[in-house]
Formats: sequence, C-alpha cells, structure tokens
Amino acid sequence: MQNEELGWEGEISDSELPLLVRRRGIAEWKDGVVRLLDRRKLPQEECYLDCKTTEQVATAIKDMVIQGAFSLSIAAGYGLALSEYAGSRNFQCLEEAANQLTTTRPTGLALRRMIDACLRSAKLAKESGVDSVEAILNTVEEAATGIAKQAWRTGQRAAALVEDGSRILTHCFPDRSYVYMMLAMARTGKSINVICSETRPYFQGARLTAMCATQAGMSASVITDSSSGYLMQTGKIDAFITAADRVCMDGTVVNKIGTYMHALAAHRNDVPYYVLRQSGPDAECSNSNNVEIEVRSGLEVTNVLGNTIVPPNVRGIYPCFDKTPPDLVTLIVTDRGIFCPAEVTKYRCAEPHIENAIL
Amino acid sequence: MQNEELGWEGEISDSELPLLVRRRGIAEWKDGVVRLLDRRKLPQEECYLDCKTTEQVATAIKDMVIQGAFSLSIAAGYGLALSEYAGSRNFQCLEEAANQLTTTRPTGLALRRMIDACLRSAKLAKESGVDSVEAILNTVEEAATGIAKQAWRTGQRAAALVEDGSRILTHCFPDRSYVYMMLAMARTGKSINVICSETRPYFQGARLTAMCATQAGMSASVITDSSSGYLMQTGKIDAFITAADRVCMDGTVVNKIGTYMHALAAHRNDVPYYVLRQSGPDAECSNSNNVEIEVRSGLEVTNVLGNTIVPPNVRGIYPCFDKTPPDLVTLIVTDRGIFCPAEVTKYRCAEPHIENAIL
Repeated sequence: MQNEELGWEGEISDSELPLLVRRRGIAEWKDGVVRLLDRRKLPQEECYLDCKTTEQVATAIKDMVIQGAFSLSIAAGYGLALSEYAGSRNFQCLEEAANQLTTTRPTGLALRRMIDACLRSAKLAKESGVDSVEAILNTVEEAATGIAKQAWRTGQRAAALVEDGSRILTHCFPDRSYVYMMLAMARTGKSINVICSETRPYFQGARLTAMCATQAGMSASVITDSSSGYLMQTGKIDAFITAADRVCMDGTVVNKIGTYMHALAAHRNDVPYYVLRQSGPDAECSNSNNVEIEVRSGLEVTNVLGNTIVPPNVRGIYPCFDKTPPDLVTLIVTDRGIFCPAEVTKYRCAEPHIENAIL
Repeated sequence: MQNEELGWEGEISDSELPLLVRRRGIAEWKDGVVRLLDRRKLPQEECYLDCKTTEQVATAIKDMVIQGAFSLSIAAGYGLALSEYAGSRNFQCLEEAANQLTTTRPTGLALRRMIDACLRSAKLAKESGVDSVEAILNTVEEAATGIAKQAWRTGQRAAALVEDGSRILTHCFPDRSYVYMMLAMARTGKSINVICSETRPYFQGARLTAMCATQAGMSASVITDSSSGYLMQTGKIDAFITAADRVCMDGTVVNKIGTYMHALAAHRNDVPYYVLRQSGPDAECSNSNNVEIEVRSGLEVTNVLGNTIVPPNVRGIYPCFDKTPPDLVTLIVTDRGIFCPAEVTKYRCAEPHIENAIL
C-alpha cells in the first residue's frame, strides 16, 4: 500500500474501499471546483457533477446528488470554500453562503456542525490575514479524517457484535460506519448477508447499500420496505442495524423514514436493533421534541423514475425521517463504546477516541 | 336509473360505480372472450386484454393484469368457462384447467372456492346433458352478485364505524367492501381523507386505491409504505382499514405484505385497525399455520417500471402476503356483523346475509 493514498481513516487504501466511502465517492475539491459523485445514477452509471458555486453545491445536496449525514457535510464544507474562492468576501456574504448550505437538509446534525466549524476557520483566517479558502479546506479535511476514524472504530465495535453468517436487515444507506463494519468483518473472515430495505422513494437501500455490501465482499438481497416484518416473523433476520442522522440524549434515534417501523417489527420479534452513531448523542437534544423532521415535496413519492404513478388530484406526502423511541433500540454503537439507549449520555464522559472531533 | 344496468349489488347503477368495481373494471364474458381491464396500466391508461384460452386468463392473473382476491376470482371463473367453450371436454381436461387457475395465486381463499363451485356446476351440467359453459357463467354471475351484496352490507357497517372527516390509512387496493364503505359514507354526507400506502412493488395503493377514492368522491393522498408509523406518531391518522385475503378462525389476518407493519404501528399508537372481510373467517383455518404465503419472483422488486435498480449479483426477495396476529386487530367487519378477532368464529352462527354464498 506504500504507493497508494490511504483512506481518511488511515487504515485502508482509498482504492480498496467501496466507491461510496472513497474520496471521489463523496466530494473532491480541485482548483475551485467541487466534484460530486451523482448517487442518483448509481449503480447503473458512475457519473460526476462539477459545482463551481456555493449555490450549485446547495442545489446538489437538496436534489440528493449526495446524501448521508456525514457525506453531504463534506460536500457542504467544500461548498462554503467555493464562496470564498470566488473572491474575498465580507463576513455577511460568508454567513449567507453558510446559511444557504445549512438549510438544505434541516434534520441532521453533522451538516450544521461542519458549516459552523468552517465558518469559524474562515473568519479566523480573514481576521489573521491568511488564506480563508485554505483554512476551510483544512477544516473539511480534518473533519473528514475525524469522521473516518470514528467510523472505523465504530465499525470495528459493531463487527464484534455480529456473528458470522448473520442475516442483517438495514434501511437506507447507513454510510461509513456500516461499511467499515463489513470491512472489519471481512478482515477476520466473517461474512454476513445484508438484507437491504429498498428505501422508497429514492431506493438508496436497493441501489447504494446493496452496491456497497457487494463491494465489501458480502452478499446482498433487496426487499420492499414493507417486507421486513414478515421476514422477522419467520425467523429470517438476525439483527437490524442502521445509522442515525441524530441520537438524542434520551436515546431516541432520528433516522430515515421507515426506521421506526422496522424497529417496531424487530422489537415485536425479539430481533436486536443496533444503531451505529459514530459521534454519539447530540448534547443539545435532551429528547426529540425539538428535532425538525424535514418534509420534502410529495412529488418525490408520486413520481417514480420519471413516471407519475398517481391519478390527478392526488398528492404525495413525504416526511423524510422518523423518530424511534429508546425502548425499541437495543444498543447504540459509537467510537467511544457501546451504550444501551438509557445510558447513552455516558458517551460524553467516556474516553474520547478523537480529541475535539469536529462533527 | 331505470335504463341503467344495476351493479351486482343491486343498489347502485354500474356506471355510477368507480371503474374498478364495475363489471368492465373486473372481467366480462362475451362470446368466448374474457375481457379484462389491465390494472397495471392504470391510472394513466384504461386498456383491456382479451383472453381466448384458460391459459391466457391464468397468465393474466399471474402477471397482475387483474388482482384482488374477489375480483380475480371472477376472472378465473370465466377462465374456466373458456376451457369448456373450446369444445366438449372430459372431466380430466376440466380439472386440469381448474388446477391451472387455482394455482395462479395460492394464498387467497376466494379463488379456490370460485373454481370449486364452477367445477361442480360444470360437472353437474355435463352429467345432466345441459350446456356446461352456461352453467359456469351462471355460477360466476351468482358468485359475483353474492360478493357484491356481501360487500355492500360490509361497507355500510364499516361506514358507520368511521367519523366524518377521518383520515384513513389503507394498504394495497382493498377492493369492493372498501369502495362501498366510501359510497355509503357519501350517501350520508360523510367524507374521509384516504391515505394510500403506495404498496410496493406494484403501487396498487398509489394507482388503484387513490383512483377509486377520488372516483368515490373522497380526497386521497399517497405515502411510501414506510411512512405510516411516523404519521401515526404525530397524530395524523385516525384509523387503519384494509381488506383481507383470508381471516383465520383465531382472528389472524392474512393480507398484502406490509399490512402487519402498519398494524404494529397502529397498535403502538392507539390507532384502531379495522379489517373488512365480507365473507367472514375461513372455517378450514383454525390458525394461519397452514396458510401458504405466495412468494413471487424477486425481479418484481428489483425491476421498477422497467428499470433494474440493483447492482449485479443482488437478488430480490418478494413474499406477497403477511400474517397479522389477532392482538393487533381491533375489529373484523363482515356482512353478518362486526366481530372482535377473538370472537370471529361467531360469524358462522350469525344470521346469514346471503344464503349459501359461493365465496
């Protein structure tokens, strides 16, 4: 691996990683252009979108070119750098750009933290008379490295929870920690069957999770989102594992819409539900009451792959996330340890894995 | 209505009914041709498929041209008539045709009952030297009339359970009883908001239920199958109502895959779950252990509107039905009365609405 660039986690060469957790699988900065892998076209096409303005990055995030709480944060950080790259700006312009990026997806936490951190770096750089673009890029790189290291530790812990040969249900694309869990298993000779809940309306489970699982050497199958309950009833699922866009201090898990229903089925059928939340709970949220659930256009439900499936005068309703109460959650796996939901606040006092992690 | 043909239920003119419960919305026999409305093309196109052989009808049922336990039974009955229409057959030929039709969809009960009844009529006719085609057609007409009358009574009972302005979640296309429930409400000035769970993989909720609801004068909206839990958590659903392909004597409900997960969410959030099962429980099933759950091709999940959405080497899994245990069911509404699941066996002793109903 000497000649190969290592992944951000410092453990695996970038080219050995599944595409979606490689640098180019997320976002790359080059000379004032942010290049994003267009996830909407996967797995059939691997094509890239070049963004030259903050607005283009914001639109790409809104339009699901890039998704996943941590991945889109990296793209957003680069998007803020574009604002400064366009020319020296005053603080107000910078804050407007930051706001434009932060409001693209209101539910996740990482995006806001990334933009806050980049904004601080940029302001400090401008006050000190150093290059603010460079400062933002350094912050993004540092944050991305932190994310990857946390995810690697979290994935290793999760891998230890899962037995060889397990059939693991997952929902949506659970991003880096889950991928590292599979890679950590592969290193010790374990394999799992990943049962991907297709995840309407964007089919991230069928498209992205299935792709990542096979690239990580695991077998994958796809079910409709409404099939997990029956599979659990008939003993065909050993564990349910997802990421989380946010975990509250009371152990409530906010994640892609549908997570709650899989968790209800898991609880009913004594299937454990493990949540991978690499950076632990959100200290600002004692519970989920103040977590805003993003509601997207109903057209994203009623239009399927370019076809309108509903009759006239029928509208779609599309909340993107739901809230799974702590009694339905078995364990929350983080970089600092594994917690039952009632004790997830202990994360804050646990030995840090990354000092001053940005996200 | 004097010049208009009445619907099978004898209450509403056929042309006033939503398309999917009109005669031509299901199946029509004319001179040795069975004409089926192709439901897969709705709501965008109203086109019809002419079947001239038993095999063509069986294939149409397998391929989802027609669906819904009762509706497809009518098509199947006509399909058996085609076998005799082709020329005088011996009993063995007739039984082979019956078997071909019965095995198209193994989970529902109505199909088997319809074919058994038609087979009996045909045999009796042949033994008596009368026209066996005519005998089968008469049996189908009698069965269809019975279904419609039971559904009308069931729909009226269900309408009385639901308050004006309620937001009613439903899954898949719940067929005639549900449509009559809406029509019975409309007659008394009640209206409901029908929240249609889209019902992957065929989107019957988004396509068929939404179309029927608007044709019955109700408002309709569409959600992904995984969104009902969140809507119930946030108080946006007043009741969950489905049909049932089968109800067992212990109150277990067998219905389209996904019903169980909606029922779990309803139970958790104190939302009542009403099952419309016009012809009551299946006396042959003390519980659901012997109910075969049809498993269809995984390609029906991994191919969406003609597009393969999964990467290579990833297979789909598609069980079509699931089993909802009685503790998750609030009430079972039938033509003979409304029963709690634990007492659904009382259906058998209740005053019959239709004497000797075929299905």
